[in-house]
Amino acid sequence: MIPKTMHALVKPAAAPGMEMREVPVPEIGPTDVLVAVETASVCGTDLHIFHWDEWAQARIKPPYIPGHEFCGTVAAIGERVQGISVGDFVSAEMHVACGHCLQCRIGQQHVCQFVKILGVDADGAFADYVKIPASNIWKLSPTIPRDFGSLFDPFGNAVHTVLSGEIAGRSVAVTGCGPIGLFSIAVAKACGAAKVFAIEPNRNRRELALRMGADEALDPATDNVAEHVLAATSHNGVDVLLEMSGHPAAIRQGFSVLRMGGRASLLGIPSRPVELDLANALIFKGATVHGINGRKMYETWFEAEALLRSGKIDLAPVITHRLPLAQFDEAMKLLENGEASKILLTVKR
Amino acid sequence: MIPKTMHALVKPAAAPGMEMREVPVPEIGPTDVLVAVETASVCGTDLHIFHWDEWAQARIKPPYIPGHEFCGTVAAIGERVQGISVGDFVSAEMHVACGHCLQCRIGQQHVCQFVKILGVDADGAFADYVKIPASNIWKLSPTIPRDFGSLFDPFGNAVHTVLSGEIAGRSVAVTGCGPIGLFSIAVAKACGAAKVFAIEPNRNRRELALRMGADEALDPATDNVAEHVLAATSHNGVDVLLEMSGHPAAIRQGFSVLRMGGRASLLGIPSRPVELDLANALIFKGATVHGINGRKMYETWFEAEALLRSGKIDLAPVITHRLPLAQFDEAMKLLENGEASKILLTVKR
Amino acid sequence: MIPKTMHALVKPAAAPGMEMREVPVPEIGPTDVLVAVETASVCGTDLHIFHWDEWAQARIKPPYIPGHEFCGTVAAIGERVQGISVGDFVSAEMHVACGHCLQCRIGQQHVCQFVKILGVDADGAFADYVKIPASNIWKLSPTIPRDFGSLFDPFGNAVHTVLSGEIAGRSVAVTGCGPIGLFSIAVAKACGAAKVFAIEPNRNRRELALRMGADEALDPATDNVAEHVLAATSHNGVDVLLEMSGHPAAIRQGFSVLRMGGRASLLGIPSRPVELDLANALIFKGATVHGINGRKMYETWFEAEALLRSGKIDLAPVITHRLPLAQFDEAMKLLENGEASKILLTVKR
Amino acid sequence: MIPKTMHALVKPAAAPGMEMREVPVPEIGPTDVLVAVETASVCGTDLHIFHWDEWAQARIKPPYIPGHEFCGTVAAIGERVQGISVGDFVSAEMHVACGHCLQCRIGQQHVCQFVKILGVDADGAFADYVKIPASNIWKLSPTIPRDFGSLFDPFGNAVHTVLSGEIAGRSVAVTGCGPIGLFSIAVAKACGAAKVFAIEPNRNRRELALRMGADEALDPATDNVAEHVLAATSHNGVDVLLEMSGHPAAIRQGFSVLRMGGRASLLGIPSRPVELDLANALIFKGATVHGINGRKMYETWFEAEALLRSGKIDLAPVITHRLPLAQFDEAMKLLENGEASKILLTVKR
Repeated sequence: MIPKTMHALVKPAAAPGMEMREVPVPEIGPTDVLVAVETASVCGTDLHIFHWDEWAQARIKPPYIPGHEFCGTVAAIGERVQGISVGDFVSAEMHVACGHCLQCRIGQQHVCQFVKILGVDADGAFADYVKIPASNIWKLSPTIPRDFGSLFDPFGNAVHTVLSGEIAGRSVAVTGCGPIGLFSIAVAKACGAAKVFAIEPNRNRRELALRMGADEALDPATDNVAEHVLAATSHNGVDVLLEMSGHPAAIRQGFSVLRMGGRASLLGIPSRPVELDLANALIFKGATVHGINGRKMYETWFEAEALLRSGKIDLAPVITHRLPLAQFDEAMKLLENGEASKILLTVKR
Repeated sequence: MIPKTMHALVKPAAAPGMEMREVPVPEIGPTDVLVAVETASVCGTDLHIFHWDEWAQARIKPPYIPGHEFCGTVAAIGERVQGISVGDFVSAEMHVACGHCLQCRIGQQHVCQFVKILGVDADGAFADYVKIPASNIWKLSPTIPRDFGSLFDPFGNAVHTVLSGEIAGRSVAVTGCGPIGLFSIAVAKACGAAKVFAIEPNRNRRELALRMGADEALDPATDNVAEHVLAATSHNGVDVLLEMSGHPAAIRQGFSVLRMGGRASLLGIPSRPVELDLANALIFKGATVHGINGRKMYETWFEAEALLRSGKIDLAPVITHRLPLAQFDEAMKLLENGEASKILLTVKR
Repeated sequence: MIPKTMHALVKPAAAPGMEMREVPVPEIGPTDVLVAVETASVCGTDLHIFHWDEWAQARIKPPYIPGHEFCGTVAAIGERVQGISVGDFVSAEMHVACGHCLQCRIGQQHVCQFVKILGVDADGAFADYVKIPASNIWKLSPTIPRDFGSLFDPFGNAVHTVLSGEIAGRSVAVTGCGPIGLFSIAVAKACGAAKVFAIEPNRNRRELALRMGADEALDPATDNVAEHVLAATSHNGVDVLLEMSGHPAAIRQGFSVLRMGGRASLLGIPSRPVELDLANALIFKGATVHGINGRKMYETWFEAEALLRSGKIDLAPVITHRLPLAQFDEAMKLLENGEASKILLTVKR
Repeated sequence: MIPKTMHALVKPAAAPGMEMREVPVPEIGPTDVLVAVETASVCGTDLHIFHWDEWAQARIKPPYIPGHEFCGTVAAIGERVQGISVGDFVSAEMHVACGHCLQCRIGQQHVCQFVKILGVDADGAFADYVKIPASNIWKLSPTIPRDFGSLFDPFGNAVHTVLSGEIAGRSVAVTGCGPIGLFSIAVAKACGAAKVFAIEPNRNRRELALRMGADEALDPATDNVAEHVLAATSHNGVDVLLEMSGHPAAIRQGFSVLRMGGRASLLGIPSRPVELDLANALIFKGATVHGINGRKMYETWFEAEALLRSGKIDLAPVITHRLPLAQFDEAMKLLENGEASKILLTVKR
């Protein structure tokens, strides 16, 4: 029985903070699915929304429910939904593409011009229930650890980034070892990367990088990163740069160790314009750069599932904390401190 | 009969200027070819060298002979040279790749780590004779207008840039209409580009852009370029950006009209680091960016020749002036003034 | 006012022939569009259905209305249809993909496992009205000649085939010059193909091939095709083979003139297994072969429209006949005789 | 000290058999390297040459020394050789490309029109010493097990085949589990393949397939392969077919389990033309097929080395026997019986 109201973590107003509230359970339309959330994980984006920074002020329209990484059980389906049943254990692609723009019509829905992100532009999953268009539901295989269910969104980011070019037999630098950077290390190694250099100032994260399979974890503050990576690659530089930090210095350092003719995939979002020596970083080098947004719909999801099902990748080390949804305040603190990597918020009902 | 000495335009010292001198004809080794230069054309790079700007001061080691765009007739061949005969009408790839570095071993000689450019790092073609490794000689088809012979270098740049991604049926913005930008317009149209927007502040160049096939030539100073291009592309932006200027404002404007999921190929060389809003220009957009250096060796040359032989492309409008080599001073002035596009220097003997 | 009944060309039973009948106008659902057909063109597939050959016997379930190439005016739209209005001049992609299979979920709807083709598996366009899912409607630009509207289906086949690999600056052999082969010639030339060899036994078609832009049209019965093409390509063979005939001998001949490392795109459908020397035709050659089915949804449609709008391609020479729909018998005869290329059937009401 | 004569396994005449002979040590030219062979392994090609079958009769010009898989120590270098020293432990690419044909000039030396294969078209490595052009020498890393040195040629074939398209997260069928098929299984798994089905009639080879990492090893004689693979892939079929047998029935079966839109890479060489249902196997499917010849020069070599150095792949299970070179007769028998997979012939001096 689906109740009329539910608990939800709400962004109540155009100001810092969030709060638990009792709100109506969403009503679903004929092509929607209602999911009883079991776990929702916290993304850096949620921290921006919590703190109400410049980006959040420009994008977010309170009051609404954040949360875009989750898994749960289907509680109800709309009358025209096919192939999904009540009781299915699912996650979802929270980028809802318009379906009509140029990109949507040519297989590039991940860069839909009119995308609406659930948990950012509309109600999300920090709640007992979340409403999702049926087309965006992803059924989770029982062979994948249940704990990984809410991680398909960031894990998919990593898969999209790593597989946006050749990776087998390649040397790789990963700049920035937040959860997506950490996942990228594991994906790269599972897909045949020859050597992965993790570059990250936070010691906890460097340790996690090694646990995820990095061959070396370097501290840009003290190791001579560029010199070291060049020496370790016969002075060629790495074949592939996976930029996961969004920090200008890391971006510049990443390009400085990229070999002539190499590939850089950029996922980290700089908060302001970056000064970059395009001539030497990119043009003379004949480099290829991919901007990475979201996950390919749904090619990345199939790849992510296949990699997880094959047992090649363990996401567990990245899950550093588990808290009840109501303790979101503590989760935000753990993330700010740099103590936590990925925090799972569990929903009890 | 090859003489002992020849006339050459020499960069004599670490200071502005060049001068005509009588110098020894180069001696060739067993795998070299000696070419009697017929025409050498002037590149923007030569202007930098002439004026002895910052880049030139860092790279050029006088005294030496500049000039890297040329055509001429084979005057002598080394004893181990095969497939090239005295009397052949030829041009040459002036990037001499090392042949041993990683890139050279995997088919990316155009980004050789140890490349030496004749006319930049060693003696070039502003002379009666020039010495070229046989592997770099390109025999010119008699079906191609003789005047185009010295233009394979910059025309090849354009071909490499345009064909670094899909072009057929695509909308295109070309930022910067120097000779390579102008060639790119013609290449794009000959290869099926649907609509080409040329963006260029100089009026002469905009007129040339239209003659080379641009559908529209826009002045960034007065036309509202971004608004106009978006309106003309159903508010998608262009599929392809070909950046030929190296100017920060043009680079930023180019990215601003690139559609989500589009491709940008950057050939223009910014003289200093560029501030770029990577998040919006590139990352959220899911764009692909190619740094373009030189010409693929020798795939681009085959493509360039095939396009010229098929008669689809006329390079003549770009050739605005013809002068004897000795009048290099005037050529430099015409280029500085923005009056000239491509100037052919002819060698009389 | 939409009438209750309409004229339609019906395949009435599991036997040769078709007949004009008065049948109910289709009723549309909430996501459908009803189009008043203006022109429908005849495809080789329709001839197979007419004659009730082996393939037709296995696939077609009479009674039903054939016809899958058409254009017309929107007469009515379902209640949930957006972006399409009554009066719009449209064509349509007649491959209706399931939307749920693996291929549909990863941007390969053109090879949907459960595709239903209107005009083959369900009622098509040889009628006053045809019912089409809104997602499959393609609005035709007024800048494209109205006569070309029904040709987007076969023209799209050609665009898909030609652009399935690199074409600019490439030499090309087209084996088989039915309408799609002829369109391919024009597409290849418009997209920068350097030289196109058309290989076709029928003299009328060879003449059309030259009108569509082929550099040479060769008769496999009398010209020594392989020897000629090799001689004309410096004994390399062509870069690209576009196989449009489905005939075993043509397929083998096509591969015999393909260069080492070349690309073959196969669209012609052999009616039975083909004996092919895979070792020499393909494996030692390091060739790449693309099987081509339908049109990419909807990337090919955008490309096709862009090419037609740019005015680079004239389809008119391929339209050899125009007949009222009721004269389908004559159309079938003209096609059998090899006199006709593309026949437009016009609907009068 | 290099002796004047050496022991070599010679193909003496146009008839079955080979014999050990004392022959002159090869004299090297200025760009050659002389290698003291340590191990040479036996390829199926050597068996064809031994038995003097139809292919051998057409290709081989006795007397000469076969053997194209080897490793050893550099004994002498020509006067113009750089970067290689006496004492280096090396293998070599035995396809000697002409360097001048179209393919060689555009980075496709692996399909050189005028390739000469050492051990097939000229003297090879079944001898105390072998002469190799310096450009073809591959220095072996000391971090790779010495035993794997002679296996770079067939291992490189496997790497080239697997990496000719996307493999990460893909399901794969390998038809034929000779040494290259077995290597392919390991490469596919190391590069992220989700599930690998080995299809092979020989029980020993199926067991090796499982040891190399295949998820399932199926017997085409008794297992219902097509039905099984389809059931195990949600009735999609596999994403990737790696055809390693050259047998018509295996090729047809392989295509029958390839999914719509899948990729097939064909390396096995059929001894005669193959009857193939191109319409259903390939065209309707929208499949991509790659013919695979040799190894990309030298991209594949870098990839092969990187994969072996990273420790992801163990080739040891495929090495079933070690014999002195003089016992080649026994090696040939073991291969004929299907008892052996890869046999290393060791050279004692």
